Amino acid sequence: MAVYTDVAADDLADFLKSYDVGELLSYKGIAEGVENSNFLLHTSKGAYILTLYEKRVAADDLPYFLGLMAHLCARGVNCPQPQKNRDGEVYSTLAGRPAAIINFLEGMWPRRPNVMHCAGVGEALAKMHVAGRDFPLVRKNPLSVDGWHTLLEAAGPRADTVQHGLFNFLQTELDYLTARWPGDLPVGVIHADLFPDNVFFLGDKLSGLIDFPFACNDLLAFDVAICLNAWCFEQDYSFNATKARAFFNAYNSVRQLTEAEQKAFPLLARGAAIRFLLTRLVDFLNVPEGAFVKPKNPLDYVRILRFHQSVASMADYGVEAPKLPA
Amino acid sequence: MAVYTDVAADDLADFLKSYDVGELLSYKGIAEGVENSNFLLHTSKGAYILTLYEKRVAADDLPYFLGLMAHLCARGVNCPQPQKNRDGEVYSTLAGRPAAIINFLEGMWPRRPNVMHCAGVGEALAKMHVAGRDFPLVRKNPLSVDGWHTLLEAAGPRADTVQHGLFNFLQTELDYLTARWPGDLPVGVIHADLFPDNVFFLGDKLSGLIDFPFACNDLLAFDVAICLNAWCFEQDYSFNATKARAFFNAYNSVRQLTEAEQKAFPLLARGAAIRFLLTRLVDFLNVPEGAFVKPKNPLDYVRILRFHQSVASMADYGVEAPKLPA
Repeated sequence: MAVYTDVAADDLADFLKSYDVGELLSYKGIAEGVENSNFLLHTSKGAYILTLYEKRVAADDLPYFLGLMAHLCARGVNCPQPQKNRDGEVYSTLAGRPAAIINFLEGMWPRRPNVMHCAGVGEALAKMHVAGRDFPLVRKNPLSVDGWHTLLEAAGPRADTVQHGLFNFLQTELDYLTARWPGDLPVGVIHADLFPDNVFFLGDKLSGLIDFPFACNDLLAFDVAICLNAWCFEQDYSFNATKARAFFNAYNSVRQLTEAEQKAFPLLARGAAIRFLLTRLVDFLNVPEGAFVKPKNPLDYVRILRFHQSVASMADYGVEAPKLPA
Repeated sequence: MAVYTDVAADDLADFLKSYDVGELLSYKGIAEGVENSNFLLHTSKGAYILTLYEKRVAADDLPYFLGLMAHLCARGVNCPQPQKNRDGEVYSTLAGRPAAIINFLEGMWPRRPNVMHCAGVGEALAKMHVAGRDFPLVRKNPLSVDGWHTLLEAAGPRADTVQHGLFNFLQTELDYLTARWPGDLPVGVIHADLFPDNVFFLGDKLSGLIDFPFACNDLLAFDVAICLNAWCFEQDYSFNATKARAFFNAYNSVRQLTEAEQKAFPLLARGAAIRFLLTRLVDFLNVPEGAFVKPKNPLDYVRILRFHQSVASMADYGVEAPKLPA
């Protein structure tokens, strides 16, 4: 939530000369993205987002992230369209940083998701999974089982300063998941971070998916589990079966979860919970003194994880069993 | 440079129903304004800025600030146009805060002002002074001589932790200015903060003046002096006489500085320097531990102040004496 690098108007106007985006009319730093600098541009051709990538690691993955958005756009998924410069490149350099321009998507993310929103995101997620099938690049998910072990080591016994006994709880859960994590489910491109603030709506109609810096190749149903956790729990962490039903039905209407995916789902949902629990825990333990940004409470996801630990099958979600493919 | 209050899409859409600004398409928190929350809105009718006023003091002055912008717009000054709701009010309440909507001005503020920019701001400032003549509301300048004394007391001997001897230097200067501050020069509405980041250009052409929270009634030539300091010194604090000449000539082409204003100008420029020196000094001495925003260096203005102390008359600025009115 910041702008780390300012850009002079002249420099930006020069940069834009190598793009076919029209004349620059204005640009504003926007309070989005925790690791990059983002600007909303108005030009004679429309609105765009300019991102300056502040970290080297992200830059190495830019061909994947930007290539994926272009691939998805070409297949009718509503997501930002990376703009190519006159050399055909989707990113180049501005203010000493890798920089990319994507078109601006109108829409608002739902602060209070309702059942219609949950259905919308289920359908859009499935369409993204289908459209990603023939994307040629591959990026391993750094935040799957191996990554969770690294995160738990980084937190270490300090985890108990957040909640008594948390380290052992996580160690036990991680051992359980590691021993059982499935290796034979359908894989493909996943968004891996499709929280409400990354999904735009105009009214109840989904207008676009944004923010792909966690996208990677992993189990498709793991992405579904991440979304279920992000969209179908209330603020008091009660599970909303009506939203879940709408979400699953919409997903299955585009891409039917296989029998194996359904069987594994409670386990995947536990993994999806521990993934965010662990990154939030490490962030929480490493907040700089007097930092501006308040870290998210890692314990929110302890409650979601405990819920899934009590679930044995899809039926326990109160979700009607999706029809299996014939 | 922050968004302090988030607003839910539903709440914002409800709020906008009482305005004639079209259907909401998107809104982004923008990294501008240090005391308020600002959002850039796209609607079916165009682009707007929504401001949530976070401090009570600002709210008390809203009728002045918003009324002034409407007054200036009506007289052809390019500044944001406050939008009235169906009750005819230019501000109401959103998320528990006073909130106003102004139209969005295209344009970019010059990070490296050139001579053309300086001429543009001189002309626009004079037009604003002329257009403000019949504005009926009055707001005393809280940052004139009385306010400077309050600020110096707030800083106190801690000023010397910034630079050895600074407190005595400021006390002596303040006594000098207080004894001589003119009371008989032309007064009117002044912007009082017309720095480059508050002036938009498209190319070399000025497209608008923004950000009126310091606007008040005071000596018009004091506003000219604030601008001279903000626009006509280089980054090494050398005085650029070419820019100053362009600035004064453009101002005088619309509203000729009187003989008395010209005589008083070096003194007014010293006052304009100490005003920003003192607010920056107090901010600098009161930065919260670990704050996100880096305070501006108050010593920048010591150098500008020392320059003006060496000036005896307009001619010493290297500026050709403006023609006096017949």
